[in-house]
Amino acid sequence: MLGPKFPWLLWAYACCCSISFCGRVVVWPTDASHWINVKVLLQELVLRGHEVTVLVPSSNLLINYQDTSSPFTFEVLQVPFSQETLDASMEDFLNFWMNEASNLFPWEIMWTMKEQLEVFTNMSKQTCDTLVMNSHLIAKLQQAKFDVLIADPLSVGGELVAEILEIPFIYSFRFSDGNVVERLCGGLPSPPSYVPASTMGLTHQMSFMERLQNFLFYIFTDLFFVKFWRDEWDGYYSNVLGKAAVEWFLFLHRYLSLAEIWLIRTYWDFEFPRPFLPNFEFVGGLHCQPAKPLPKVSQLHSAIGCSGEHGIIVFTLGSMVYNLSDEKSNVIAKALSQLPQKVLWRYKGKKPETLGSNTKIYDWIPQNDLLGHPLTKAFITHGGTNGLYEAIYHGIPMVGIPMFADQHDNIAHMVAKGAAVQVDFNTMKTQDLADALNTVIYNSTYKENALKLSKIQHDQPVKPLDRAVFWIEFVMRHKGAKHLRPAAHHLTWYQYHSLDVLAFLFTCTATIVFILFKCSASGNYTDCLGANGRLES
Amino acid sequence: MLGPKFPWLLWAYACCCSISFCGRVVVWPTDASHWINVKVLLQELVLRGHEVTVLVPSSNLLINYQDTSSPFTFEVLQVPFSQETLDASMEDFLNFWMNEASNLFPWEIMWTMKEQLEVFTNMSKQTCDTLVMNSHLIAKLQQAKFDVLIADPLSVGGELVAEILEIPFIYSFRFSDGNVVERLCGGLPSPPSYVPASTMGLTHQMSFMERLQNFLFYIFTDLFFVKFWRDEWDGYYSNVLGKAAVEWFLFLHRYLSLAEIWLIRTYWDFEFPRPFLPNFEFVGGLHCQPAKPLPKVSQLHSAIGCSGEHGIIVFTLGSMVYNLSDEKSNVIAKALSQLPQKVLWRYKGKKPETLGSNTKIYDWIPQNDLLGHPLTKAFITHGGTNGLYEAIYHGIPMVGIPMFADQHDNIAHMVAKGAAVQVDFNTMKTQDLADALNTVIYNSTYKENALKLSKIQHDQPVKPLDRAVFWIEFVMRHKGAKHLRPAAHHLTWYQYHSLDVLAFLFTCTATIVFILFKCSASGNYTDCLGANGRLES
Repeated sequence: MLGPKFPWLLWAYACCCSISFCGRVVVWPTDASHWINVKVLLQELVLRGHEVTVLVPSSNLLINYQDTSSPFTFEVLQVPFSQETLDASMEDFLNFWMNEASNLFPWEIMWTMKEQLEVFTNMSKQTCDTLVMNSHLIAKLQQAKFDVLIADPLSVGGELVAEILEIPFIYSFRFSDGNVVERLCGGLPSPPSYVPASTMGLTHQMSFMERLQNFLFYIFTDLFFVKFWRDEWDGYYSNVLGKAAVEWFLFLHRYLSLAEIWLIRTYWDFEFPRPFLPNFEFVGGLHCQPAKPLPKVSQLHSAIGCSGEHGIIVFTLGSMVYNLSDEKSNVIAKALSQLPQKVLWRYKGKKPETLGSNTKIYDWIPQNDLLGHPLTKAFITHGGTNGLYEAIYHGIPMVGIPMFADQHDNIAHMVAKGAAVQVDFNTMKTQDLADALNTVIYNSTYKENALKLSKIQHDQPVKPLDRAVFWIEFVMRHKGAKHLRPAAHHLTWYQYHSLDVLAFLFTCTATIVFILFKCSASGNYTDCLGANGRLES
Repeated sequence: MLGPKFPWLLWAYACCCSISFCGRVVVWPTDASHWINVKVLLQELVLRGHEVTVLVPSSNLLINYQDTSSPFTFEVLQVPFSQETLDASMEDFLNFWMNEASNLFPWEIMWTMKEQLEVFTNMSKQTCDTLVMNSHLIAKLQQAKFDVLIADPLSVGGELVAEILEIPFIYSFRFSDGNVVERLCGGLPSPPSYVPASTMGLTHQMSFMERLQNFLFYIFTDLFFVKFWRDEWDGYYSNVLGKAAVEWFLFLHRYLSLAEIWLIRTYWDFEFPRPFLPNFEFVGGLHCQPAKPLPKVSQLHSAIGCSGEHGIIVFTLGSMVYNLSDEKSNVIAKALSQLPQKVLWRYKGKKPETLGSNTKIYDWIPQNDLLGHPLTKAFITHGGTNGLYEAIYHGIPMVGIPMFADQHDNIAHMVAKGAAVQVDFNTMKTQDLADALNTVIYNSTYKENALKLSKIQHDQPVKPLDRAVFWIEFVMRHKGAKHLRPAAHHLTWYQYHSLDVLAFLFTCTATIVFILFKCSASGNYTDCLGANGRLES
């Protein structure tokens, strides 16, 4: 018997693990605000010497692959749907949630959700097809020897590409309806008694009726997920990978569960404390940074300069909402006109007739720099996570006008934490908005609570961006992070909940009780047994 | 209406949150190996400019309060039990687990456990009494204006002192039987299907029978905890605080749940991945550090120098086990004598007759420096977390001879991760130990796996010691960490598990089914209703 000849080599290897290296990262991005967030992470990876390749559909919303100054390499997937088709689908989606949903019954909303899901699922499948049916492209990607893939579970396909390229993958993720993806695929424990389902606008402290509502919504979203999403994609994955879906946990379910790390785009300044797993890292606010001073000759600088002691209000409804109805924009503009603050409104729609002299409309505003300006008093927001985190970072109280997706949820979190007032987009009157703004500006507890959240965001052992980069580099260095993967993924749902153990114990107990009952009914034990010693019924 | 006059003051306050300051820390320590670990943390706090006061019982095992070179201030609690009484109780405890327990039936072990618990609980209560009945001391401690208290849930009383001093507290913790304290008081979710109860020696991947065993052990430990520990202490807490224990969740239970942060003395190199909460921080290995070179004129240096290519084996059974039976020590010494390695054995007992020329016995050894020596091939350990983490840190494979407490569990973790072989202390034969050592030394996978664990330990965004200090300082800066406290603590057990929701849904369903059944049995719906439209039975 001989020991390893060069144990010091193994030792040296172990010690070298923390030396950084230049890795190759491939990205299966999600569009819109998701891209805005993940772009900051990818830019940081490039700054640290890694090569980043983004697989981008030729028709998309916000990923400008023709930008020659971009630090990323773009691999364009020539999708069969046109830019116009995509824009129209998004327009329909926004129009439904902003103008129609509030007048419909729940089952009508559910039906439309199903239809919308079908539209976007078809586009996602077509996007996947452009890659999985292109052997030339696959060979090219395989030759590139990527170290890791970054994806978002909302854009299904990333895990499929990682499987084909045989590389580990990491998710950057904000939410799914009812936390269903995190729970069912990520294995995230979510007791419905104090973990509110996302999109419900509930908090962690619920009344009995709210807990009932939350419990039922968990069941509803689980069924919706299985019926209209997982089953749909299982067939696709099964076709692509050429295997029959005979395993207990089906294709998509299994592949999503293989993510090495889930980078969740929130933190405990925003989240209600809840259980999580060691391969979940909460990196909310990774895109935030100190405000840069505004150029002294800019219109914005002048507008702020003449705001006086009253300061300014920053107003945006996000990167997706360009337009409002005349009625709605006039209600808003009139409310803003009643305030002594200067209002800087990012808006591309028609100029409202009621626009006050204190309100300036801009196609685009440097949102982070404005929120970090010392004169900023409040932020009117639709409740998108990116903008909301910039407000947290700079300690600005908010007025939330949520419309769809996670926005109701996000604003509910800020309201529960005392840093925001919510206004209903559909029923909002001029006075409602004016009152809400006056409340968050002149009731100092809102500012104090916003600053408390800001302190939590700033006071972390490692900045969120650095943590996110650390775990991506960790996965590249170690070819994964298997030591963080819970054994829950090897269990069926009834095993996970110990239902088989309970059934066994129940059966044993029932048998014993039955025998004892029979014996006592018969007077004594020997009466229960026949001549051959067997139990007689 | 006027806004806050100096909003920039609030802002400046928010920005200052990360500036370090010199805080006052008071410690309610747990003795033995717990103290060895927490001492390193306290030394680091002193190095960073904080004042540390340790409340130490006059009779204790390892806390040397007469050491004038100590960086801590000691406040000695004059306990009524003598050093001899404490030593004898510990001797009885060790003797039972090392020599008697293996020959007893489970219920006999349980009975002895109950008796041992009573002995140590009485001593703990007497220790608490010396503080809570000493108004002069309480006044002195209150005047000291401590910022935070550090305790260990195994030494009950820390949370009581924190309550009296009205300061936040933090736990440094390794384990409790069946994770019962973490689960029931900390709110840590622990699905028994893949989170093995501590002290059971199970892993995260269990067969049906193991899951059944684990499930039953959870129930057993919960009942044991409630009956022999919580009820006992609830009476005491109720007396001291002068309140009737009328709340649903009783005194001890509630006070333990108030810990701001739980610093768990393990990490994911050791732990199986499991759910946890944001106020749990896994800081295992915080006491580990690079090996210092041995003095060139020391006996140890000479012993290692002549070990040649075979290298050395480090052997210790921890800080509590001083002696072994003649039979046991001879079995061990004979096994060691068969090896080509030099063996450095920390042992205070009688020199075994079979001691080989390759084995040197020392009263004390610089364990960390030896484990970090390039010639060290293996570590023979009882499985205490401190030594085990030093082996992980330096990537040394282990032979585990566990005896009591968490030791079986610790070694089971290392065996499951392929870095150790376990030998049964009670049935061990000479050849068993020799074979185990040859396996971990000459089968290179053990060294490779130990180095993998070492890489995980070294490759963290922040070192465990720095993370532990960060969260202690965070609690001092922010007067707590309430934003990390889960709402689960406000729920009863049946609310937590949504049993009231399930009962409600079951009742509703049963009522509907009953009505439908009645209607169908009666032929049509109108038959179910009486003349006045009410349901008739």
